[in-house]
Amino acid sequence: MFLELDGHGPHYAQLARALKSAVLDGRLTTGARLPPTRELAHELELSRTTVLAAYEQLRAEGFIEGHTGSGSYVAALQTQPPLLSAQPMIDMPSRYAQRARLTRTPGIATKHRGLRYELQYGHSQINPALNGIWGRELARAAMYTPPQIADVQGLPALRKQICDYLACRRGVRISPEQILVVAGTQQAVTLTARVLLDEGDAVVLEEPHYFSMHQALVAHGSRICAVRTDRDGLICAELPQVSPHLVCVTPSHQFPTGAVLSLPRRLKLLRYAEKHQCWILEDDYDGEFRYDAHPLAALRSLDQGDRVIYVGTFSKVLFGTLRLAYMALPVALVEDFFNAKYLSDIASPGIEQAALAHFMEDGGFERHLRLARKELQVRREALIEGLHQYAGERVEIVGSPAGMHVVVWLRGYDHSRAEALIELARERGLGLYSMTPHYLNPPARPGLLLGYCGLSVTALREAMQLFGQCLDDMDAERA
Amino acid sequence: MFLELDGHGPHYAQLARALKSAVLDGRLTTGARLPPTRELAHELELSRTTVLAAYEQLRAEGFIEGHTGSGSYVAALQTQPPLLSAQPMIDMPSRYAQRARLTRTPGIATKHRGLRYELQYGHSQINPALNGIWGRELARAAMYTPPQIADVQGLPALRKQICDYLACRRGVRISPEQILVVAGTQQAVTLTARVLLDEGDAVVLEEPHYFSMHQALVAHGSRICAVRTDRDGLICAELPQVSPHLVCVTPSHQFPTGAVLSLPRRLKLLRYAEKHQCWILEDDYDGEFRYDAHPLAALRSLDQGDRVIYVGTFSKVLFGTLRLAYMALPVALVEDFFNAKYLSDIASPGIEQAALAHFMEDGGFERHLRLARKELQVRREALIEGLHQYAGERVEIVGSPAGMHVVVWLRGYDHSRAEALIELARERGLGLYSMTPHYLNPPARPGLLLGYCGLSVTALREAMQLFGQCLDDMDAERA
Repeated sequence: MFLELDGHGPHYAQLARALKSAVLDGRLTTGARLPPTRELAHELELSRTTVLAAYEQLRAEGFIEGHTGSGSYVAALQTQPPLLSAQPMIDMPSRYAQRARLTRTPGIATKHRGLRYELQYGHSQINPALNGIWGRELARAAMYTPPQIADVQGLPALRKQICDYLACRRGVRISPEQILVVAGTQQAVTLTARVLLDEGDAVVLEEPHYFSMHQALVAHGSRICAVRTDRDGLICAELPQVSPHLVCVTPSHQFPTGAVLSLPRRLKLLRYAEKHQCWILEDDYDGEFRYDAHPLAALRSLDQGDRVIYVGTFSKVLFGTLRLAYMALPVALVEDFFNAKYLSDIASPGIEQAALAHFMEDGGFERHLRLARKELQVRREALIEGLHQYAGERVEIVGSPAGMHVVVWLRGYDHSRAEALIELARERGLGLYSMTPHYLNPPARPGLLLGYCGLSVTALREAMQLFGQCLDDMDAERA
Repeated sequence: MFLELDGHGPHYAQLARALKSAVLDGRLTTGARLPPTRELAHELELSRTTVLAAYEQLRAEGFIEGHTGSGSYVAALQTQPPLLSAQPMIDMPSRYAQRARLTRTPGIATKHRGLRYELQYGHSQINPALNGIWGRELARAAMYTPPQIADVQGLPALRKQICDYLACRRGVRISPEQILVVAGTQQAVTLTARVLLDEGDAVVLEEPHYFSMHQALVAHGSRICAVRTDRDGLICAELPQVSPHLVCVTPSHQFPTGAVLSLPRRLKLLRYAEKHQCWILEDDYDGEFRYDAHPLAALRSLDQGDRVIYVGTFSKVLFGTLRLAYMALPVALVEDFFNAKYLSDIASPGIEQAALAHFMEDGGFERHLRLARKELQVRREALIEGLHQYAGERVEIVGSPAGMHVVVWLRGYDHSRAEALIELARERGLGLYSMTPHYLNPPARPGLLLGYCGLSVTALREAMQLFGQCLDDMDAERA
């Protein structure tokens, strides 16, 4: 009998696996007597204890019968080779999985990883001291956080801090009972879809929009109705006459164009939602950062009809891999969202929530925000200065002085030439990101979304110099 | 003009909010001139800087027009009172949300919180030193974990450790490319439903089963087909003739009865899945802990047709609020599960994954498992001894010497009397949990699920003494 040990884990387990394979393959058939342990040990150069342990394991699992001493025999198992192993899988995945396959924008999130200058949006690296600070917060919170699963809706201490923050910085007065802590904005979108939308229900998205939100809604089976935006944000006059179920907006800083939704349009949108009895999802992804004035209060702060589902995230202002965000929910939806969160993943991790609650209560979060705001403003200026100096009239810069990214439109470029520019930059170590994936209908001219939260001022200057050289070379090639 | 400051956050923000309310309420109408800043400051006993900041904020948000000096005027906003605020909400939530409402077993997970003796399953508190150890791991990982969102499928270092663990301890050989890190078993179930099941698709559940799994599947819209279990686990002969899409099983330690699925039935189940081209979800929730023999290898280790979706969790062996689990996926399903995870919450948190990878690599996890195994065995023995001593013939103990809980059937009790017993115990500080919520069709006689992972040996003895007293008093009351 040929037995091959696979070299993984303890010897007895390797031997047990090898013997099981022999039984399942049919090399050892029902009733066959296994070699005496002493003999097999000698043959395989193992200790007898090891062989005894392997036999014991096989006996416990029901592969062999009989007792040491009187011999061990292969049990009656009706083993046969797998029926269909050579046949192709014919199973259909769910409609959800099929739609998810279609919505994939392959590799978009990771396309440029490992480049020297990475201008990806949301690639936060603002305060180098944050790693150590956060590590201490985690170690501290680990000491007193109960080991049991936390409250479905989030730790009370964190929900209280979130409410204080929303009141002070975003103009939103809400009770901790209406807060739900979630695993990032993406989960907020997914839960919203689950609670509010059946397959085929209509959802208004801004055009352009954050593509992962679009993907989640399409996979869910929603009918997407894209409404254009201009420099005042969503064009409310173009909202559909037939009631959608949900309108998704980014009022503080339209993603990705950077426009701010004007007050008249905010009021119009709220009246639309009341008239049509639909819900509004306010994604306030970086409303915190505005450099020319105080941050604008959130749309939710104007919402007297309780129809705005507000989503804020810590992933942008702290760091992406934290995966903590929160929703401020209309009273009528609280129970349904809690159910959906519970059924999705029971609750978010407790230690991180406790660490964040303490970080906020202790003033560390506020200090970080002040520092981040200053640093982001300086970086933004460096980026724009670099654009003026090295790209000049070849790009048009748009968006408000806010957030963590700048949008530029490429003058005299079509989409395929823009792709060539992105590819050229990539080869030289510069990660540029096209605006196009954020559109349902590609814009007339190509644009770039330049995130400045991941690079220092020096690196941003160098990146813009490199960007200028790429533009030069594209021009030279054309000439 | 009456302006009430709400006392939250900086004064300027309070004043801005009060003025906005006045505009939205119609107390300040379009074109109305705001009081001069100096005057308002005097009237409200605020500094003039505060009033200026509030006006600046209102100007930035578009509520007022004009400049300081020449006066500020309320902008034209078309404000009207909310249309429907007095009307009831008529919006229907999604079918998902409606089903989720029906599946709720109110308060079951938190019913007994705060009691002195809590016998809830999964309420892990095994190693008091773990808090500190885990805190150090987190602090360490925070220093080197990149701030960006981790890989959708999980950190490579963690996936490698999981594969090593699966090979050594669960007999499962699988590539890190087939591992998906998820936020607990519940998310594994939810993702499985999304990828494999359309509304109305049939799923086989064990009877009894873990109720949260049942809830998630019912909310998803699955047709549940409950198949009975006996002391050898799922009765495969009773599997439906019409192919289901999915069979969910707990082979290592049936939840909640504690039965081990026998080898002939394991092979039968695998053949059934191949014949019917359906998938098997193996929930190996506490397969690690077996006290009379080596842990049985997982069902997945016998799966030659690649039809078993294996789910393992760290929440049971470490602590519940960690919210980290993993799936070992059939090759044919890898892409669809990655898509579903991405669309649900992008990826699991990076620092926790890095900490866990290091904890496993460094041997700390293995040490914890050894300690936990010993401790759990001692606790189990204490619990059973206590049952013999204080409950005696009034209970029947079932289940294999494994896991983190014991099931007892109450002799001479009907369901309503069992409820009275649980209530009596609760009043005295003892948290008992009924088996009934884990059944679709309530069992003939009532049972209790006694988790011993959250109490010390001493506390377990005291708890059993208290349990005996409760039984005595129930007997006395009847007599």
